[in-house]
Amino acid sequence: MPGRLIGVGVGPGDPELLTLKAVKAIETADIVAYFAKAGNLSNAHAIVADRLGHVAELPLLYPVTTEIHRHDERYKSAILDFYEKSAAAVAAHLDAGRTVAVLSEGDPLFYGSYMHIHCRLADRYQTEVIPGITAMSGSWSAAGAPIAQGDDILVVVPGTLDEAVLAVRFAEADAAVVMKLGRNLAKVRRALAAAGKLDRAIYVERATTAAAITMRLADKTDDVAPYFSLLLVPGWETNS
Amino acid sequence: MPGRLIGVGVGPGDPELLTLKAVKAIETADIVAYFAKAGNLSNAHAIVADRLGHVAELPLLYPVTTEIHRHDERYKSAILDFYEKSAAAVAAHLDAGRTVAVLSEGDPLFYGSYMHIHCRLADRYQTEVIPGITAMSGSWSAAGAPIAQGDDILVVVPGTLDEAVLAVRFAEADAAVVMKLGRNLAKVRRALAAAGKLDRAIYVERATTAAAITMRLADKTDDVAPYFSLLLVPGWETNS
Ligand SMILES: C[S@@+](CC[C@H](N)C(=O)[O-])C[C@H]1O[C@@H](n2cnc3c(N)ncnc32)[C@H](O)[C@@H]1O
Ligand SMILES: C[S@@+](CC[C@H](N)C(=O)[O-])C[C@H]1O[C@@H](n2cnc3c(N)ncnc32)[C@H](O)[C@@H]1O
Repeated sequence: MPGRLIGVGVGPGDPELLTLKAVKAIETADIVAYFAKAGNLSNAHAIVADRLGHVAELPLLYPVTTEIHRHDERYKSAILDFYEKSAAAVAAHLDAGRTVAVLSEGDPLFYGSYMHIHCRLADRYQTEVIPGITAMSGSWSAAGAPIAQGDDILVVVPGTLDEAVLAVRFAEADAAVVMKLGRNLAKVRRALAAAGKLDRAIYVERATTAAAITMRLADKTDDVAPYFSLLLVPGWETNS
Repeated sequence: MPGRLIGVGVGPGDPELLTLKAVKAIETADIVAYFAKAGNLSNAHAIVADRLGHVAELPLLYPVTTEIHRHDERYKSAILDFYEKSAAAVAAHLDAGRTVAVLSEGDPLFYGSYMHIHCRLADRYQTEVIPGITAMSGSWSAAGAPIAQGDDILVVVPGTLDEAVLAVRFAEADAAVVMKLGRNLAKVRRALAAAGKLDRAIYVERATTAAAITMRLADKTDDVAPYFSLLLVPGWETNS
């Protein structure tokens, strides 16, 4: 009997934001797998570290690609190769009848690495995905900022997009979330200004952790943002 | 000492999708409040019913407005009046020093009724919002459908919008979620067809509950959808 694959959302940072279902899945898995950058701690792993006990771990370590641009074919092929090997490593455990929980920061199927395992194995093995609190939910909750209501349209954009594309999306939507902010903050700020939304934007860093920062973007005087940061532009302008 | 207001996300249906933090907030609150339509059971209440024990409950019952169109001024004023009275009822408990947990289906600040209490009281009382698993996360997880990856743009639209607006949004975005489907399904289906996305759409009803239905929209032969239903149009077309 092959084992079971479980994609487990562990939420944005606060271990109390795990669901009951995620806790059970982690505590009963034979193998706990997680993506990490070589030399860095995995955030998803850190969130559940206290619950792991002596369970066997399978770290999936991203290859070092910092010198290659992400649109370069060599980058793409190195990453695809890495996903293939990661899926094969997980599959080997499944073939041996083990239940493998793959940790995912936030929600597994929302811009998460887990989906690279999922799309390679879900057809072949019994698979379950346990949703997690997304970074954006953790962020607007911490900010106490109602994000969308009534007839509002909410757009979620990665900060990696071109400035002109971002400006159009911001202008069209009632509410917006910018993921993958990091090195893109200066560009995103210009796009928000072009769309007339700079004043409404809220900057959130490491939401729901002890190191969390929440502030109006207009009050942030530099354009330095870590990987774990995002922007919220709340909708619901009538607010009543 | 005034009490504390807590907006508690209880997730989309499965009681196992409550977070540890939500469980604690519900089990230690003095008052558990929730919105419901008169004569109907509250879904949020049903999700946590087994945990409520003898805690005092404060149901906030929507006025019956089925005969008035939602764009009619009389509807708007009846609803605003109801939110004012609901906030006052919660505030009375807070003034008496009680901790009030207001339940919210899914995530409190994402198209949720809780925000009508929040915007009236958060400035005056110590307030915390506990994020919940959204209906859309519960739905794409149940469907095993990666919703967005890489440079994908995700748009969330209420099905209440005009057909032409919906068609434009669907055409522009890589991925889409349609909330508040219900009686809008026929219209939304036409808008998806106009945008060439009908084939990718997934229909999800009562996600994460025992009565859940997940199917390709193209395979659904009627346009009957309950209040608790939504559509997913997954992005990530390269899927690798
Ligand atoms: C690869 S995506 C993963 C998203 C995750 N699966 C989710 O459901 O939110 C990584 C991006 O999520 C955002 N992010 C993740 N955790 C965060 C946190 N605790 N605070 C702020 N942003 C966060 C950042 O924008 C980061 O660049
Ligand atoms: C007022 S909104 C509340 C959204 C909620 N706060 C959330 O975070 O998902 C209600 C809409 O959410 C969607 N919804 C809520 N629960 C659902 C479920 N279990 N399955 C499918 N759709 C659901 C439906 O589209 C419904 O019309």
